[in-house]
Amino acid sequence: MPRKLNIGILGCGFMAKIHANAYKKIGYVFSASLVEPELRMVYSRNESAVKRTAERFNFQKWTTNWKDIINDDIDIFDNTGSNDTHYEPTLLALKAGKHVIVEKPLAVNLQEAREMYDASQEAQKNGIKSMVAFNYRFIPALRLVKRIINEGRLGKIYQFRSNFLQDKMADPTVPFSWRLDKEKAGSFALGDLNSHAIDILRFLLQAEVDSVMGYQKTFNTKRPDQNGKQLSVDVDETSLLWLEMENGVLATLESSKVSTGYKAMWRIEIHGSEGGIYFDLTRANELQFYSKADPLYLQGMKVINVTEPEAHELFEDWLPRGHGIGWEYYHLYMLEHFLRSIVMGTDIGPQGATFYDGLKCQQVIEAAIMSFEKGTWIKIKDILE
Amino acid sequence: MPRKLNIGILGCGFMAKIHANAYKKIGYVFSASLVEPELRMVYSRNESAVKRTAERFNFQKWTTNWKDIINDDIDIFDNTGSNDTHYEPTLLALKAGKHVIVEKPLAVNLQEAREMYDASQEAQKNGIKSMVAFNYRFIPALRLVKRIINEGRLGKIYQFRSNFLQDKMADPTVPFSWRLDKEKAGSFALGDLNSHAIDILRFLLQAEVDSVMGYQKTFNTKRPDQNGKQLSVDVDETSLLWLEMENGVLATLESSKVSTGYKAMWRIEIHGSEGGIYFDLTRANELQFYSKADPLYLQGMKVINVTEPEAHELFEDWLPRGHGIGWEYYHLYMLEHFLRSIVMGTDIGPQGATFYDGLKCQQVIEAAIMSFEKGTWIKIKDILE
Amino acid sequence: MPRKLNIGILGCGFMAKIHANAYKKIGYVFSASLVEPELRMVYSRNESAVKRTAERFNFQKWTTNWKDIINDDIDIFDNTGSNDTHYEPTLLALKAGKHVIVEKPLAVNLQEAREMYDASQEAQKNGIKSMVAFNYRFIPALRLVKRIINEGRLGKIYQFRSNFLQDKMADPTVPFSWRLDKEKAGSFALGDLNSHAIDILRFLLQAEVDSVMGYQKTFNTKRPDQNGKQLSVDVDETSLLWLEMENGVLATLESSKVSTGYKAMWRIEIHGSEGGIYFDLTRANELQFYSKADPLYLQGMKVINVTEPEAHELFEDWLPRGHGIGWEYYHLYMLEHFLRSIVMGTDIGPQGATFYDGLKCQQVIEAAIMSFEKGTWIKIKDILE
Amino acid sequence: MPRKLNIGILGCGFMAKIHANAYKKIGYVFSASLVEPELRMVYSRNESAVKRTAERFNFQKWTTNWKDIINDDIDIFDNTGSNDTHYEPTLLALKAGKHVIVEKPLAVNLQEAREMYDASQEAQKNGIKSMVAFNYRFIPALRLVKRIINEGRLGKIYQFRSNFLQDKMADPTVPFSWRLDKEKAGSFALGDLNSHAIDILRFLLQAEVDSVMGYQKTFNTKRPDQNGKQLSVDVDETSLLWLEMENGVLATLESSKVSTGYKAMWRIEIHGSEGGIYFDLTRANELQFYSKADPLYLQGMKVINVTEPEAHELFEDWLPRGHGIGWEYYHLYMLEHFLRSIVMGTDIGPQGATFYDGLKCQQVIEAAIMSFEKGTWIKIKDILE
Repeated sequence: MPRKLNIGILGCGFMAKIHANAYKKIGYVFSASLVEPELRMVYSRNESAVKRTAERFNFQKWTTNWKDIINDDIDIFDNTGSNDTHYEPTLLALKAGKHVIVEKPLAVNLQEAREMYDASQEAQKNGIKSMVAFNYRFIPALRLVKRIINEGRLGKIYQFRSNFLQDKMADPTVPFSWRLDKEKAGSFALGDLNSHAIDILRFLLQAEVDSVMGYQKTFNTKRPDQNGKQLSVDVDETSLLWLEMENGVLATLESSKVSTGYKAMWRIEIHGSEGGIYFDLTRANELQFYSKADPLYLQGMKVINVTEPEAHELFEDWLPRGHGIGWEYYHLYMLEHFLRSIVMGTDIGPQGATFYDGLKCQQVIEAAIMSFEKGTWIKIKDILE
Repeated sequence: MPRKLNIGILGCGFMAKIHANAYKKIGYVFSASLVEPELRMVYSRNESAVKRTAERFNFQKWTTNWKDIINDDIDIFDNTGSNDTHYEPTLLALKAGKHVIVEKPLAVNLQEAREMYDASQEAQKNGIKSMVAFNYRFIPALRLVKRIINEGRLGKIYQFRSNFLQDKMADPTVPFSWRLDKEKAGSFALGDLNSHAIDILRFLLQAEVDSVMGYQKTFNTKRPDQNGKQLSVDVDETSLLWLEMENGVLATLESSKVSTGYKAMWRIEIHGSEGGIYFDLTRANELQFYSKADPLYLQGMKVINVTEPEAHELFEDWLPRGHGIGWEYYHLYMLEHFLRSIVMGTDIGPQGATFYDGLKCQQVIEAAIMSFEKGTWIKIKDILE
Repeated sequence: MPRKLNIGILGCGFMAKIHANAYKKIGYVFSASLVEPELRMVYSRNESAVKRTAERFNFQKWTTNWKDIINDDIDIFDNTGSNDTHYEPTLLALKAGKHVIVEKPLAVNLQEAREMYDASQEAQKNGIKSMVAFNYRFIPALRLVKRIINEGRLGKIYQFRSNFLQDKMADPTVPFSWRLDKEKAGSFALGDLNSHAIDILRFLLQAEVDSVMGYQKTFNTKRPDQNGKQLSVDVDETSLLWLEMENGVLATLESSKVSTGYKAMWRIEIHGSEGGIYFDLTRANELQFYSKADPLYLQGMKVINVTEPEAHELFEDWLPRGHGIGWEYYHLYMLEHFLRSIVMGTDIGPQGATFYDGLKCQQVIEAAIMSFEKGTWIKIKDILE
Repeated sequence: MPRKLNIGILGCGFMAKIHANAYKKIGYVFSASLVEPELRMVYSRNESAVKRTAERFNFQKWTTNWKDIINDDIDIFDNTGSNDTHYEPTLLALKAGKHVIVEKPLAVNLQEAREMYDASQEAQKNGIKSMVAFNYRFIPALRLVKRIINEGRLGKIYQFRSNFLQDKMADPTVPFSWRLDKEKAGSFALGDLNSHAIDILRFLLQAEVDSVMGYQKTFNTKRPDQNGKQLSVDVDETSLLWLEMENGVLATLESSKVSTGYKAMWRIEIHGSEGGIYFDLTRANELQFYSKADPLYLQGMKVINVTEPEAHELFEDWLPRGHGIGWEYYHLYMLEHFLRSIVMGTDIGPQGATFYDGLKCQQVIEAAIMSFEKGTWIKIKDILE
């Protein structure tokens, strides 16, 4: 019998919808699901919004006071709120013995992230699980990258390149929002997009960052608010990082919100002495792989359709091969992993992102900002002190 | 308040799962859904299979007698069974005043299809809806094709080309199944895949077929059954069609089950005096469009990411632009259209496929087989007599 | 010391220029060229045109009487004239002991092709070489296909598909020319484009056609001449072929002059039990290859950049790997093969196209037209009688 | 009558061959060529090599003393030697009144570059032309980029991204050569590849670099010489640059010699408020262009086949549309421009690269190295002092 788990979600924006969808599907997408999530309560400070969300997804309850969730009979506290609402509710939920999953980036600064990590360590002693919602770890094509690397098919890895490129903000008339407010968001292209790249880099290479050179730029420094008033944008539209990894790999990460031509491209390339990788989120059911193990006359970039239930990790026996899954599935697979870890008592990592992963990511973000401000390389170990 | 609709599904194979998933999501994917489907009953002759399915998807009941569904308090009879189980249950359900959706192809022969069409006409007088599950009419990229054609952007259309290419049967050891049995399936590459192409051709061009040249081939004429016994394959692994359309367009349709290299490619190309179209199901979130209205030095095949909630028909305001949907959504959109038509009393066509569309498709299938057997062109009007 | 060979070219159109360019380059592109072609004489009935061509390419002489070439001290008679000028000059040149290369298709009908083949057989007794200018046999990527097939990497071949798609004639205002005149050209999409496909099919599969179903269509039946007078177009803008090969392969060939969106696409796909091939002339430096010998989780279409001097047949050690060659090189490689065969006394085939290949191609063309006219399949052996 | 121009080439390596080929073709590829280049003399210190080259390309003379070329009756001194042989011979040739074209980068350091620029200015007073062989300015697809930018189709440009990625050195056993010797080459990935990117950036944007952040890395620090002796590699295998342009554009340039998977990819992306550009040297006959001027539902990356003689700058009326040119043509077009400038007395720039362009490129290279060594941003104006 699958185990019932009561879910409480903080936030009722876009990500809350995607999570609610995932919880509803987990029970049947997986032919032998161990869990049966129950949408128990949802919170937003906006009463009409939270009521609409509760109705749409059949939550049992809604509230405009987030503490109500923690005080309720929930098993899981799912924090999809804006970045500045991660810290306090997460700490409280952990203390209350709730399993917690929180959106990325973990916090708006390193200090908060470290406290949250400490709290998660403490909670773990009581079997309480915590996870950061780095959902892209659950793309089947990226799992295949990990397998290819682990099998040594890339040889000695030289370079890792990530370009996370969106274009919505290329239009100067797109209005101001909380993501453009440094206090609420911490950073923009860096925290919203490059945080994913930092996590995937660490995840795929199983290595830590040694030192960081960062740069960032804002092309449109004023944006109108909903009343047409011009507000100053003090976060980055483009974030550039050069990372020296402890294992000698050179990583170059760029994220941009003004890359006209790309609605949501995320290009990842890895080059080693024996092979190479190309991935693009726009065509996320595919992975490109080049191997020097092939005879020279047959070497080339192979476009692998990563949809073989028999062969591709994570790709459930749900759709037939060749019939791609959409973006929502990375969240679904992530949440299934989280719930299964709870029920089975297994570890979140290394497949899922722990609060330790969230902390390490935050260190790189902090180093990037420091490097940008000073115009020099920053050693990660100097951040830790 | 959304209206409750009780669903009964005949069959518990792959397509039943996809439909069950869709029914579960309709209520919340659409922000203002008018319906709330209820999974009432599922049927399979295989008791253990149907029990598992009922449990997995929370059907209220299951049965091993399909007539139970029709006799139950259902609103919708969803027939996902093998081709030879379309005819009788569909007729009975319509007679019982149930709305019916039935898998494609509508029937195993033209005679059955015509009777089913007649029954649907009769039922319609009482407000009973019927639909054929040609789900690919609900791909946002193909809706965009229709819009482009309707806006005259292709000019006078010369050619329509479809290649529906899969490779599963390229392996001679893949075992026998009902789809390889002419009596149960009618045909294979023709009925399973080219039926889709015929429907989309008619749907996009809004024109009927005038005459047909057909050919088919079976490369692996024996397949092992589950006990290793070699059985004869009497259906087509590859189906070739040349169609002269009444409006002068030349259509060439190929479907193949042995096209190694393609797990599930469906390439559609349309060429007109003013523009051209390229679509591939493998990258179904994209459409390629060439327009001679551009200045000569800027003409090219434009790769449109068909994921703009503000601009692209069917693409719900559910995922952000650039974040693609998976294959299950064409079924979801199709069933939502069906249910909405029932609740609103609106027409199934021309967006959805009516039984008339199913009948017209069946005529072309029949003509194709006749043409193959005679080795000559067949006029559709000679089939109707 | 490379051997001097005097070249005489009939025609001064586009193909004559490409051949002249090739003759000029052969001596140095190949680091150890055995020949030094000399541009001796060029013919056109248009005096001003032929003078311009002679000057531009430094031909020693020009003439408006094509027999002058044969009577001159030439070694090679290169016939690039319109299709109706292949027959008589080729026969005369062979009789005069000149090596002959002639544009495809070999002739405007089968009767002429057979006589030309007989003449080439007769000439061969005296060491006189003859070749048909099927230049696409000399695309490095297609040579790689041949190697892949020969190595058994496709297994048992099921299907061969060719789509040769151009769009120039999609514009109804494009004027009349000799290619649209049945008497001068024989056929259009069939003879100009599908002839290439027929030859490559035979070349790659090393098999003959057994039977043919043909169809063709003209969408724009009137075209203006240079004075604006409307002339009737009696040749095909689109040519469709289904071919049953003697070895059981099913080939489907289409050529079209009205495929808006494609300036000069030629897509070739081959599917076998063990692998698949995709080639497109638009990206002719690439070949795509799918192999089931890879582990299932790594199977995919590999994009091979066919530019490795060390590994790829024909790709000369002239450009570095990754730096593609242009369309002119297939002609260059073809003519080098022709000249080398002459100097070395080696065979034209199977790499180059002999007059036998030209004859076999012509038979299929004739069968295609006959099939179109009768609306039935035609056996090649019934053509030979 | 076309004017005869005597050519002397310093060097007989790969680039000398490509130039010799171009000189031989200029006279006939262009239907009304103004020049008739004559291959007069070639130099290499290696006697057997230079003799072979002279014979292969029909140079009238060869020498092992480069000064012989300058003392001979040549019009053009074409310097294709290694980077450390640019300075002295170029100065001498200019002084001797020869037109000079020199390979990129102009020099091995900024001091030499400035002297060479001064000399070119002096020579120009006497009508002597000088040019740097930045051949990629002569890719038709990049000319189209320039046109698109000039027409304002990108709006306000935000970012320019270049990734010049090769993989030959990913193999640690590839032997040592002059390019890996800092004294002879100056730098490797930076000088050989990123120099192209710097030039194209300035060329396309018509703007200068304001400040530079540079980084570089060598992954294989030892390479065997021809005798198997391990030598130290003191140049960069990967070069990273961030450039702030004077006009506010942020440019990110990477070049790498160890990017397994790419034989010779050069990806250029430009993003502006109104449009975007994608170019890849591997498919150099194509340009991708995204325009927000299209209606939202039709916006996409358009793949333009840049082969329209009627519409695309530089693409000569030589091959028919859709039939691509190879890499050699950028050199051909460049040298034709150089010779035409000489004969017509027109300017080298802004289409061709002048020594001023070479100098500006060298400044950025110098700034990049300085930035790498100091770990901080470098202002270009601080380099000029």
